Amino acid sequence: MEKGSISPIFWKNGKLVILDQTKLPNREIYRELGTKEEVYDAIKTLAVRGAPAIGDCAAYGLFVSARNRKDQDLASFLKGIREDAEYLNSSRPTAVNLSWALKREVHVLEDFARGKTEEGKTGADVVEDAKEILLEEAHKIWNEDVESCRSMGEYGLSLLKPGMGILTHCNAGALATAKYGTCLSPVYLGEEQGYGFKVFSDETRPLLQGARLTAWELHRAGIDVTTICDNMASIVMKNGWIDAVVVGCDRMAANGDGANKIGTSGVAILAKEYGIPFYMYVPTSTIDLNTETGADIPIEEREGAEIREMWYREPMAPEGIHFYNPAFDVTDAKYITAVVTEKGVVYPPYTENLPKIVKQG
Amino acid sequence: MEKGSISPIFWKNGKLVILDQTKLPNREIYRELGTKEEVYDAIKTLAVRGAPAIGDCAAYGLFVSARNRKDQDLASFLKGIREDAEYLNSSRPTAVNLSWALKREVHVLEDFARGKTEEGKTGADVVEDAKEILLEEAHKIWNEDVESCRSMGEYGLSLLKPGMGILTHCNAGALATAKYGTCLSPVYLGEEQGYGFKVFSDETRPLLQGARLTAWELHRAGIDVTTICDNMASIVMKNGWIDAVVVGCDRMAANGDGANKIGTSGVAILAKEYGIPFYMYVPTSTIDLNTETGADIPIEEREGAEIREMWYREPMAPEGIHFYNPAFDVTDAKYITAVVTEKGVVYPPYTENLPKIVKQG
Repeated sequence: MEKGSISPIFWKNGKLVILDQTKLPNREIYRELGTKEEVYDAIKTLAVRGAPAIGDCAAYGLFVSARNRKDQDLASFLKGIREDAEYLNSSRPTAVNLSWALKREVHVLEDFARGKTEEGKTGADVVEDAKEILLEEAHKIWNEDVESCRSMGEYGLSLLKPGMGILTHCNAGALATAKYGTCLSPVYLGEEQGYGFKVFSDETRPLLQGARLTAWELHRAGIDVTTICDNMASIVMKNGWIDAVVVGCDRMAANGDGANKIGTSGVAILAKEYGIPFYMYVPTSTIDLNTETGADIPIEEREGAEIREMWYREPMAPEGIHFYNPAFDVTDAKYITAVVTEKGVVYPPYTENLPKIVKQG
Repeated sequence: MEKGSISPIFWKNGKLVILDQTKLPNREIYRELGTKEEVYDAIKTLAVRGAPAIGDCAAYGLFVSARNRKDQDLASFLKGIREDAEYLNSSRPTAVNLSWALKREVHVLEDFARGKTEEGKTGADVVEDAKEILLEEAHKIWNEDVESCRSMGEYGLSLLKPGMGILTHCNAGALATAKYGTCLSPVYLGEEQGYGFKVFSDETRPLLQGARLTAWELHRAGIDVTTICDNMASIVMKNGWIDAVVVGCDRMAANGDGANKIGTSGVAILAKEYGIPFYMYVPTSTIDLNTETGADIPIEEREGAEIREMWYREPMAPEGIHFYNPAFDVTDAKYITAVVTEKGVVYPPYTENLPKIVKQG
């Protein structure tokens, strides 16, 4: 694999290959997914993670499942594929890109089937053509993801200067997409151009995506990366080591409030206090104009065991106490210096400017 | 042991007993320390921790070492005790209370020896009396620690109201002192009076003192405690669950800048942003008027392995990356609503008001 950004999911020699992220950072293991059950498990167990990467994987996964089908006529094939799509979609019910990618695959197949049925062609050879349609669409989805990330990287890079210190939280990197990532995309593009960024990666408790994933993918690409505990963000900013903060986004409301991995809002407040620009990377598909403000975004709460005992040799907190383990928090629009999308950079007032970029062709 | 605050170090039935904090939160193991080597190891391995508790332990430890001495005359006993004090002092060279307590013990012994020598009494029976002097002084040091903590608790409680939500960082609780703790003292006193506080304990990476120690001691005392990851402080404040932040202090400069466990400065900035009072608990012995500002306080840096692999089943970050692991950070005076000491509450301007309280009888 080339130096630079890796791809955690790709199509190679007629096979769907993923990097098993549950084994990182200690083992770099690539796995072929040859059945729909293997695709389902890979998504369910977080071997593949990150909304765009999950969408890419599901799209190829539907072709994998199609290839294994023995249907001799188009109608039964279409029925089977709809069932397979439903099955794959149940692997992680909340990931938007998952259902979006599967729906897109099924729609393309339905269009193809409608045309062929009108022509009266519904036999086994047409079923084989229909399978190819699914693979082509999966390639398209994957390539669009790469292009979108690359475009975000180019717009994002225009906000940065060579030699800057950059703080990031969680992982919105290559491992969450087909390639490049969202907020780490400008880091990879800058590296290609010799920018020499110095990246600080919050370890991001409780699931440690910053330590396990962000540090791993940047280090593998030869980029200078320093991992800190989340509570050290304040001192590295005070030390004058951070010139910009870049983070991803899980859902942005119409007013610019952005939900992202737990802890993001605290980093944004520190950045404001220390006078450091805070950039949120948000594909336009993640901007939800129907959600008025961040207060309308529901926050997933997870089990306290993730804080107390996951990863550890033995529990690190006593039995019987309470835990509060929100997976996300909402960063107020007022702390966000700019929103970087694949169509360009958006500045406040967000209520006015976000709809414009979403609707822009 | 009574409900309420525990004592992590105490004298019982002629024995020095400590709670081994390296075994918390999973095992509550009390150990008798019967030799100076055992006392040294207990301090060195952090079985006893927290500056005041270390001082208490060393004071009793010097008596333990004296009791084992077979000296038949005062001069050789005094010489031996000085050596033992030096030995115990080397267990953790940077802990101020350690050397302070040992010096105090040796001075009292020297005064006693001077008097007896002038009287011409220097035999074996006087050596036995001299040993008792050391035990009495150790009791005094321990009792003064309890009183100082209780006094800080009373002043601190005047700033709080029943039912409040209180956030704390690291452990400045009973486990760090003879009893009550510094910033947790008002929580214990409030509990005695039915205040019904709801305490949020930052887990405090990388050493997890908040999860392992603060949550353990509060839960054991029947106090409602919720452990969160450090990066969740922002969301619990935004949720409206926090009415006050209480933290300890390792060293306060003359201008009110206070060094404390890494992450404290970030919590203070969040508290200011959310309009929540931030109280630092600082025994007057911790106020260093010779240090002008926080910029003059050196920050200990520790090994990256604490972040990467300590506690874990396997490393949680890749090999070869950088780590930055400062043990403390400095909270600017401008973020500190009030400083709570054993002599009273100090408000800004600190440059004016801190010297007054330090010099107050």
